[in-house]
Amino acid sequence: MTPLTLDTSLLAPTVTPAQIDQLSDQLATTHRHLLDGTCPGADFLGWRDWPDQDHHQLLDAIQQAASRIQQQSQALVVIGIGGSHLAGQAGLEFIHGSYHAPHVNGLPVYFVGHNLSSRAWLEIAARLRHQDWSLNVISKSGTTLEPGLAFAYFRSLLEKRYGAAARERIYATTDAHTGLLHDQAVGAGWSRFIVPDDIGGRYSGLTSVGLLPWAVAGLDIAAALQGASKAKNDLLSNLNLTNPAWQYAASRYLLCRAGKTLELFATYEPSLQLLGRWWQQLFGESEGKTNPVIFPATINYTQDLHSLGQFLQQGSKNMFETTFYLDEDATIPLTSSDVHHTWPYLDGKNLDFVQKQAHLATLQAHHQGGVPQLVFHLTQTSEFTLGYTLYFFEYACALSALLLGVNPFDQPGVQAYKEEMMRRLQE
Amino acid sequence: MTPLTLDTSLLAPTVTPAQIDQLSDQLATTHRHLLDGTCPGADFLGWRDWPDQDHHQLLDAIQQAASRIQQQSQALVVIGIGGSHLAGQAGLEFIHGSYHAPHVNGLPVYFVGHNLSSRAWLEIAARLRHQDWSLNVISKSGTTLEPGLAFAYFRSLLEKRYGAAARERIYATTDAHTGLLHDQAVGAGWSRFIVPDDIGGRYSGLTSVGLLPWAVAGLDIAAALQGASKAKNDLLSNLNLTNPAWQYAASRYLLCRAGKTLELFATYEPSLQLLGRWWQQLFGESEGKTNPVIFPATINYTQDLHSLGQFLQQGSKNMFETTFYLDEDATIPLTSSDVHHTWPYLDGKNLDFVQKQAHLATLQAHHQGGVPQLVFHLTQTSEFTLGYTLYFFEYACALSALLLGVNPFDQPGVQAYKEEMMRRLQE
Repeated sequence: MTPLTLDTSLLAPTVTPAQIDQLSDQLATTHRHLLDGTCPGADFLGWRDWPDQDHHQLLDAIQQAASRIQQQSQALVVIGIGGSHLAGQAGLEFIHGSYHAPHVNGLPVYFVGHNLSSRAWLEIAARLRHQDWSLNVISKSGTTLEPGLAFAYFRSLLEKRYGAAARERIYATTDAHTGLLHDQAVGAGWSRFIVPDDIGGRYSGLTSVGLLPWAVAGLDIAAALQGASKAKNDLLSNLNLTNPAWQYAASRYLLCRAGKTLELFATYEPSLQLLGRWWQQLFGESEGKTNPVIFPATINYTQDLHSLGQFLQQGSKNMFETTFYLDEDATIPLTSSDVHHTWPYLDGKNLDFVQKQAHLATLQAHHQGGVPQLVFHLTQTSEFTLGYTLYFFEYACALSALLLGVNPFDQPGVQAYKEEMMRRLQE
Repeated sequence: MTPLTLDTSLLAPTVTPAQIDQLSDQLATTHRHLLDGTCPGADFLGWRDWPDQDHHQLLDAIQQAASRIQQQSQALVVIGIGGSHLAGQAGLEFIHGSYHAPHVNGLPVYFVGHNLSSRAWLEIAARLRHQDWSLNVISKSGTTLEPGLAFAYFRSLLEKRYGAAARERIYATTDAHTGLLHDQAVGAGWSRFIVPDDIGGRYSGLTSVGLLPWAVAGLDIAAALQGASKAKNDLLSNLNLTNPAWQYAASRYLLCRAGKTLELFATYEPSLQLLGRWWQQLFGESEGKTNPVIFPATINYTQDLHSLGQFLQQGSKNMFETTFYLDEDATIPLTSSDVHHTWPYLDGKNLDFVQKQAHLATLQAHHQGGVPQLVFHLTQTSEFTLGYTLYFFEYACALSALLLGVNPFDQPGVQAYKEEMMRRLQE
């Protein structure tokens, strides 16, 4: 049984099953190019076979580091930006929830280095003052400005606190052979983990980039890789339109051609919102290099039914919704006298039932309002389904970008602001 | 001196100053209709004069309640959805920051009732198990499903814990005269605060809806109202295009007509991200009832320069950016040897300087990439500028929606999902 399925039945009338069927050959060709490495960006296909490789040594090394961090510290600071922090953060919320309940087996993790905010850095520094902590810096090169400056700052805090023993608390996830951070780590004797050469930032969540923070927070990282491996086997061998990644890529292609250039990734669980942010980077940075193309945005239900719901019902018609719905029940029974009095038909039901009806009502109302609907169903949240989900979208995004005719794995447009910023900083 | 200003110089060539000037008469007419109450939705203009009314008694009552809550509890749970929680939450982050540093004078506040997630409710319940807490339920009617069910659940937790004394810990912010929650509160003897009849949910941030949670968290709520009053006086008396709210409304109107139907509200401070969510509801729900109209989305820099930056540079050209930039320095000096070695030109500079150059570089790069730019500058974050900012956008949104020809204060489209959901729940 597959943990993630896709329902395309509410795409019509904008996109019809017959139209999707017509893309079958194009999808098969694109898939073949991904498999035989003849697609654009073929140097960055390392994510494709990653889950099936032998990672016993890597997992052991990560578990040892995580154990040491858990023994030495009450918190881990993770420094990274973009692909170096979104999957890590999304995975933690996926498992632990968004209200950061006290963890039984793991440590709280603070993510920094993805902004240039003195306020935010000082706030985190204040929280660290009264606890022991360790530091995981994640950067392929070490020269990206935000994590570079954050590392300089937090490392200096660590060294003021622990002196020479700070080196026992620094973990560098970086290039295997070269680069500023690699050289610093070798010179100082910090523990090192590798960002593979053939896996780009936004595809790196299942490497040490995500696995080390997850392990420190108490996640079962072997299960995450097993889930990704299951996704690989489900998806790469299913060469027809029963493949949900094919359906998703084909649907998006056709929706974009029909003028639906805004995709809203809707979740009903606060703990899935950061998965949406990871998804947003994945698709935005992979596809956003042609015109027209779909802008990926996120929406949080039921909250946003009371804000953007109005817009979806009666505003512009250039959008579609992709709901990522968790089918698993957590179950709060609705038994109080208030419920009995005001909503008697809910008496004896539970909160998950209400959420599900809100979801189904929203699908129908927005579909009738002219917004095509895609619906993913996830059976449950676990490390296994986390790995499955990340791999699913990585593969689907590669397919989708290639259908659009762009290289899924580069980001030439990010250079423009970097170059302009560097020019200004050196003035 | 005004704490919030707008720079429109990077709208050209999409929108020119001459085009904005041509809207002057239309803006003056719209403004007059707002002032004399002849615009659509005139029953909901209570927000307009609210900051200048005599609120001494209200402020005293809120401060007394806040003091009692602070004495009795270590946390406050606030239950509300949409307009009943976004301003409250945004204001807390605006002042306290997004990493929830321990508060000197106030309590932590948990917001619930804006989703139907058993997971999230159980997580918060787990956190409350080991501390004393009080409850503020915010609902005009008491029959909105999400906060209604959340209130039933958390109230039952409170009553299990404190028995009859739970009533000393419940604060209802609701209608003055009628409704389920009003009647419950009167019957049970809970403390009551009022949602004014002539102020809609998304315009209610500066009423008891926002003020009570802010006061409990230690914010200076009198200063927030003073800031709003300053905004009112600055904006309502300035009848020409030097009025930044007129500029903003006119710019959005022209950008929408030029096909720019996606607005990205960009912030560089994590503590301003929830202000963006409040802004998103305000504009989305006020304007999203015609076509074409601008979809409001938020973007967090510099993080998203490493994700959506690619899209802005080279993707679809149907968007513009509205940056909300904080000019105040918090100042982390860049003095470490790492900085000296890798970025020698930054030696002796501070982090705010780098953030500012990133901001200016982004403006230029995205403008050259074909994305028109609006830039708000905020002098500092304080309760005064919080009140100023909320009032500014309330007024600007009313103007903007009226220019589009829609009623800024209703939300007929929200009914569709509500009715469908109720039908399903009662099946």
